Amino acid sequence: MSTQSLLPELPSGAAEFGRKLVEHGWLIPTMAPGVNGLSEDAERVVAGLNRRAGQIARAMPESPALRSLRFPPVNGQELLQRTNYLTSFPQLVGAVDVFDGDSRDHRALLESVDSGERGWRDRLAPSDLVLVPAVCHSLYPHLQGTIADGEWYELTGECFRNEPSEDPFRMVSFRMREYVLLGTPEQALAHRDRWLAEAQTLLTGLGLTVRIEGANDPFFGRSGRLLASGQRAAELKFELLVEAVPGRSTAVASGNWHQDHFGGEFGIRSADGEPAHSACFGFGLERIMLALVARHGFRLADWPADVRNALQG
Amino acid sequence: MSTQSLLPELPSGAAEFGRKLVEHGWLIPTMAPGVNGLSEDAERVVAGLNRRAGQIARAMPESPALRSLRFPPVNGQELLQRTNYLTSFPQLVGAVDVFDGDSRDHRALLESVDSGERGWRDRLAPSDLVLVPAVCHSLYPHLQGTIADGEWYELTGECFRNEPSEDPFRMVSFRMREYVLLGTPEQALAHRDRWLAEAQTLLTGLGLTVRIEGANDPFFGRSGRLLASGQRAAELKFELLVEAVPGRSTAVASGNWHQDHFGGEFGIRSADGEPAHSACFGFGLERIMLALVARHGFRLADWPADVRNALQG
Repeated sequence: MSTQSLLPELPSGAAEFGRKLVEHGWLIPTMAPGVNGLSEDAERVVAGLNRRAGQIARAMPESPALRSLRFPPVNGQELLQRTNYLTSFPQLVGAVDVFDGDSRDHRALLESVDSGERGWRDRLAPSDLVLVPAVCHSLYPHLQGTIADGEWYELTGECFRNEPSEDPFRMVSFRMREYVLLGTPEQALAHRDRWLAEAQTLLTGLGLTVRIEGANDPFFGRSGRLLASGQRAAELKFELLVEAVPGRSTAVASGNWHQDHFGGEFGIRSADGEPAHSACFGFGLERIMLALVARHGFRLADWPADVRNALQG
Repeated sequence: MSTQSLLPELPSGAAEFGRKLVEHGWLIPTMAPGVNGLSEDAERVVAGLNRRAGQIARAMPESPALRSLRFPPVNGQELLQRTNYLTSFPQLVGAVDVFDGDSRDHRALLESVDSGERGWRDRLAPSDLVLVPAVCHSLYPHLQGTIADGEWYELTGECFRNEPSEDPFRMVSFRMREYVLLGTPEQALAHRDRWLAEAQTLLTGLGLTVRIEGANDPFFGRSGRLLASGQRAAELKFELLVEAVPGRSTAVASGNWHQDHFGGEFGIRSADGEPAHSACFGFGLERIMLALVARHGFRLADWPADVRNALQG
């Protein structure tokens, strides 16, 4: 029996699913494409996912070493440079302009606005601030120096990626919950692979059909294609994919081995003096929530009892 | 007995308090001034404050009508214009630049970066996105049309205000929990005043010494001074102030009656066909958390049992 026949309202395409999510109140459109508010039920599901992930982490034998930190959605522009994000994913970057003029400049600014000119934006000036594209990036500068034998972090936060779309799964502003390990190559790999398995079990238990596949990031441009195929060949990135919309796979979580990319750049050294390796596992919180809606329907109260229980406080 | 003698490590000034917060791990500096990560304990306190505020709201007789929504940290630039934020507070605005070039532009971008030029930022282009300065602003466009007899919303989210500072209470990126009412003038005023009283009781119960004072927003420029004194004279804004650092008051929450400012601009009408009045009450979550640290010390485990209990899940 197909999901479609169970849930006649379900979407045949991503844009249609997006319209139905708005109609049923799960998503609230804002004044920007690809940016959505969420209903109370949507937030309830997101909170439940965070709770379940936290429980899984705390059931792991190393959990006494787990540290939970929180970083805001903006950071310094240096971060985009040192993580190589500006080199690899310029198309996704967001940087912040501010107004640093006086009253006269302000009058000119408002006149541009009133006359409907786009030019008012040129009257703002670049600041040193950028929007953070991945929660774990904010962590690495903080860890400079020699770390303990395997450090392990839990992070939840806002991410920005400039890819406005009609596809509700592809939000410009979204939240990620990440588990990040820094240590030896073996520790990093084991961390990534364990979380891939744990997350598959979690999502399967919530009724999703999930498969794990090798993947690559959307590196920019022609040279980016080489980086992407290199990343795939070295098996650095794996994604958890669901078919939320018939015939179309969506990645709802991913596990990444960064090798010593961040450890080297940010001067993070393992106890043995070598640049630390790192791995992160990230849950795409809104994407998983939407995949659950696609699977179980638009009325949270009608979701299977075991799924609702698993997501409850 | 002064707080100072109880807690010898406590600050004599805001910048010194900021350094101690970092030293004790409550704040984690990032690559941008005025932008801070938070420790697990800090987040525990923030979560406790959110929970307490939610409990207070749900104990109010109208609570069946309360709706909880969630909006992301970015929105469309039109929002800054239509809320009048660009007119009143240009100095606090953040707008988002993105890269929309090709491979050649990308090479030029990276060359600017490598040569250490600030010019690379000029190679980005304005997008339609801005950072949201107050959580409730994202709500109003959603409410266009005629509302029920008094609509009431609970919102928690990220705010951006471009005022980098050494003062840890003045963050560029911070979270606010807001309770927003739309309805008649009487409903709006009653909402604001009830929350001012409820929040004072809550914060007093957590050990803070809180006073309520008339206030004004930091309107920009010379004409802004008029707006500010008008706002004060009309008694539209009240703040909850604490003396977290000796001799210096900090606003940790505020109640605002917007009259029909947002109702008129966004075409939100009360049942009687008039532009809806609105009022919001906002808790500055990080500010309250920091005021509690200043009051009870740098070790959460040593805070008074009743305070810890009140903030527990």
